[in-house]
Amino acid sequence: MNKKDLVNQIRHKRTFLCIGLDTDINKIPKHLLVCDDPVFEFNKQIIDSTQDLCVAYKLNTAFYESNGIKGWESLIKTLNYIPENIFSIADAKRGDIGNTSQMYAETFFKTIPFDSVTVNPYMGSDSVKPFLNFDGKWVVLLALTSNHGSKDFQNILDNESLPLYKKVIQTSKNWGNEDNMMFVVGATKAGALAEIRKIIPNHFLLVPGVGAQGGSLKDVVEYGMNHDCGLLINSSRSIIYSSNDLKFATSARESALKIKKEMEAFLD
Amino acid sequence: MNKKDLVNQIRHKRTFLCIGLDTDINKIPKHLLVCDDPVFEFNKQIIDSTQDLCVAYKLNTAFYESNGIKGWESLIKTLNYIPENIFSIADAKRGDIGNTSQMYAETFFKTIPFDSVTVNPYMGSDSVKPFLNFDGKWVVLLALTSNHGSKDFQNILDNESLPLYKKVIQTSKNWGNEDNMMFVVGATKAGALAEIRKIIPNHFLLVPGVGAQGGSLKDVVEYGMNHDCGLLINSSRSIIYSSNDLKFATSARESALKIKKEMEAFLD
Repeated sequence: MNKKDLVNQIRHKRTFLCIGLDTDINKIPKHLLVCDDPVFEFNKQIIDSTQDLCVAYKLNTAFYESNGIKGWESLIKTLNYIPENIFSIADAKRGDIGNTSQMYAETFFKTIPFDSVTVNPYMGSDSVKPFLNFDGKWVVLLALTSNHGSKDFQNILDNESLPLYKKVIQTSKNWGNEDNMMFVVGATKAGALAEIRKIIPNHFLLVPGVGAQGGSLKDVVEYGMNHDCGLLINSSRSIIYSSNDLKFATSARESALKIKKEMEAFLD
Repeated sequence: MNKKDLVNQIRHKRTFLCIGLDTDINKIPKHLLVCDDPVFEFNKQIIDSTQDLCVAYKLNTAFYESNGIKGWESLIKTLNYIPENIFSIADAKRGDIGNTSQMYAETFFKTIPFDSVTVNPYMGSDSVKPFLNFDGKWVVLLALTSNHGSKDFQNILDNESLPLYKKVIQTSKNWGNEDNMMFVVGATKAGALAEIRKIIPNHFLLVPGVGAQGGSLKDVVEYGMNHDCGLLINSSRSIIYSSNDLKFATSARESALKIKKEMEAFLD
């Protein structure tokens, strides 16, 4: 999916919500466990009940890998079930030396054809660039993450007092462009968004951490929104695990709708 | 596998070679393509012909993932085929927020029971610690990698002039201990090994980059070896692709034997 189509989708549907399908077989409603593929059945019902409220689905590969072969089957079936006009993200946080990153890029852009994959910047340019040679496909590069441990290294100041996460954005923004790179910036660090927007005014940002992790949508919009919206706000647990009974999909819809209505107001 | 068993294996077999099974279906001998699982058949023959010459096998997950479900089947079959007394490494370079890293740890320590997994430090403590709660299992944390792009961020000096890769080692060494953490240090940066040994004299290091990437075994031993040996030197392409014909496994053995003989001399 290209940037124009993504922006049009946001304007048309009046939402910039990304729903994270971090589907843990131990957390889904028990009545689904009789299905042949409980994880896929859960995702299918979540997608059915929320697809008009979001513009992206993000599949966290760890939750699928941990189920082995069966988990990869659930992941592939889920990706195939996501409507073509909704942006898909493999939240895989891959990255390795050049020839290996090429293999990861083929995994997530060809073998399992997502629109985008999250990539870890630690190994530098040749670990990221192989992902940038696929038409209509995106790298979502980690910059400032939403977790507690992000401060261990991402805030380290270089000898020009630039924190590592800014150095990552500053250095990497020219490896690709606004049409094939986004950056992960955690909602729990909304104050940093204003600083980041000075470096990359036009890039899309994938913002996790609203909801279960405590980030504020209002702050993220205030500091991070640009003329194209420029934001995909991810919410996972607080939507998909809204309830744990027969009505889980309806509950998920209600949670997503609440966020979507807030987003509508911000888009006006 | 615990540290004592690993050190005993090195002393007994007189080698500290790790063979990287970066098995690319496009690079293996054509006669294997008629097999039901060519990648596994290739790995099986390589393992048969080299298992007395090495102490570890490292499976680069990208090469398996890129073949989809079939690739994961090859990976699992290969792991099951590796003799129990040889150390196994999932070179997966995973890492995510705490609850997700927990899932990755379960993937590579339980679902697919490797002895160790490579982990990316960028997201900090809670992205690494979940991997450290499994008895006899190891985190191999990226510190200074062997690729060209490693200089982009890993050499950034903090305001005390400490490069990021040293900061990573300094900070993370206390998350685990010498019995459940190793560090990746590229052979192409042998000079840095002496500095790193000042911070972690006793930890094992996984050293890629000897062979195809141009690193020198002699330099690595000179600067990196400790009283337990403390080194696993990985070689992938320069062993497994030694030849591309019916005798590929014999050729791989010859290449591995050459390195093993050099290692023997260094162990004396």
